[in-house]
Amino acid sequence: METVSENRCFGGTQGVYTHASDATGGDMTFGLFLPDEASDGPVPLLWYLSGLTCTHENAMVKAGAQAWAAEQGIAVVFPDTSPRGEGVANHDDYDLGQGAGFYIDATQPPWSPHFKMQTYILEDLTRLLFNAFPLDEERQSITGHSMGGHGALTLAAKMPDRFRSASAFSPICNPTQSDWGKKQFAAYLGTIDAGKAHDATELAKTGALDTIPLLIDTGTDDQFADLLCTEALAQTLIARRADATIRLQKGYDHSYFFVSTFIEDHIAFHAEALWR
Amino acid sequence: METVSENRCFGGTQGVYTHASDATGGDMTFGLFLPDEASDGPVPLLWYLSGLTCTHENAMVKAGAQAWAAEQGIAVVFPDTSPRGEGVANHDDYDLGQGAGFYIDATQPPWSPHFKMQTYILEDLTRLLFNAFPLDEERQSITGHSMGGHGALTLAAKMPDRFRSASAFSPICNPTQSDWGKKQFAAYLGTIDAGKAHDATELAKTGALDTIPLLIDTGTDDQFADLLCTEALAQTLIARRADATIRLQKGYDHSYFFVSTFIEDHIAFHAEALWR
Repeated sequence: METVSENRCFGGTQGVYTHASDATGGDMTFGLFLPDEASDGPVPLLWYLSGLTCTHENAMVKAGAQAWAAEQGIAVVFPDTSPRGEGVANHDDYDLGQGAGFYIDATQPPWSPHFKMQTYILEDLTRLLFNAFPLDEERQSITGHSMGGHGALTLAAKMPDRFRSASAFSPICNPTQSDWGKKQFAAYLGTIDAGKAHDATELAKTGALDTIPLLIDTGTDDQFADLLCTEALAQTLIARRADATIRLQKGYDHSYFFVSTFIEDHIAFHAEALWR
Repeated sequence: METVSENRCFGGTQGVYTHASDATGGDMTFGLFLPDEASDGPVPLLWYLSGLTCTHENAMVKAGAQAWAAEQGIAVVFPDTSPRGEGVANHDDYDLGQGAGFYIDATQPPWSPHFKMQTYILEDLTRLLFNAFPLDEERQSITGHSMGGHGALTLAAKMPDRFRSASAFSPICNPTQSDWGKKQFAAYLGTIDAGKAHDATELAKTGALDTIPLLIDTGTDDQFADLLCTEALAQTLIARRADATIRLQKGYDHSYFFVSTFIEDHIAFHAEALWR
């Protein structure tokens, strides 16, 4: 692992690091905010998964998470959204290829050699983080924005014992029914149908999201509302009586101005689960 | 004036607008955060002047100001740092020309036709803001970062009746003694000596910073400490018994991670003067 930068921030440290990943077969970059409390011993970890076109950097500089993570004594990791670099497949569309890993493991060429973001997050980066930093593996929660909201909800559904709580800002809720999903599942997995195993609404139908508290915020003026299919997930979670809070935030859109407005609430929500 | 974008943010609106400026002889872009209270009538205005290489956008997305401005019911304007576009002079160095206006009016070619940032801020943008938005002209304060900290302190010194308080993050404090200043004053004004009228330490010596409360934060690990000359301004302000608080923040550097950490304090400081 190499340190790219470390900046003091809200009494803690905002770092950026690169490391070799077996899963993606190349170097990956991530941001990690460690609160001051980490100098005294392991602290809880909140995963923040970013959206289409983002790198590790967008949320790290724009979401304003550090102020509230510092207040709650919680670390936040900001992974990249895909493999990158020479020899890594790409596509001209902004929503396929680099910057659009969708937090799944591709099985189809040309994506399959590097696009293994699920394994990267859940195994490679996980191992590195808990080996290299004072983080408490028993206290993890997950959040994300847009494609990263899809990632947060689906990875939480897949790992019911790992994450104590999950939340999302304007998540892609039903990607097998959306142009943010159908194209990517077809490309990465061969069929749209194969994407059902990576679709928050489909997973919720099986009860996989019944066991942890959930918080979902989406703006009423989200310019991508039709692609998010929030209503499908809401219907499913409410029918199952899941421990879910779904809030439509009046007048807000899909931007980081929306995320930064409500991230205090999300971090407080996770803190309650993480410090229990 | 044209609206580039408006995003709901912390209950208010983060807008970006362009307008024609007589002073700079071209179109200028700025960001303006209006808190919710602005829908009921004029609110106080905090000017945020940015540093070298920045546009209107950097602080708007990275400083985290909106959270605290919303809490205090204060608007924040984020002007650009120089004229831009076709026909506007530039230089290969990052610290001269576009992105490096230094908040002064150039008298020397090739800069003099467009580089009139002092007049742009104090006249053109001022007139536009108070005509077009619900802002209270009697309640203005000013802050900034690095070159923008220089701008905030010097414009406050030049307009003692206009700004109720001034603050700065890692300001360039004595530019006539610094490589962040000597080159620019020589280029824009013809001589370094002409820069004394635009040097916070020189202005402070005349008593021009004695009349309003001042707050200055600089990191002990600022990588540009030698260029900032904080000690010269501190010595002058303290010798004059100015109403100044100068804080060295242990371990912090020159980045927006530093600014975002302390902007809550700065906005609270200005709110006290603005709501008095």
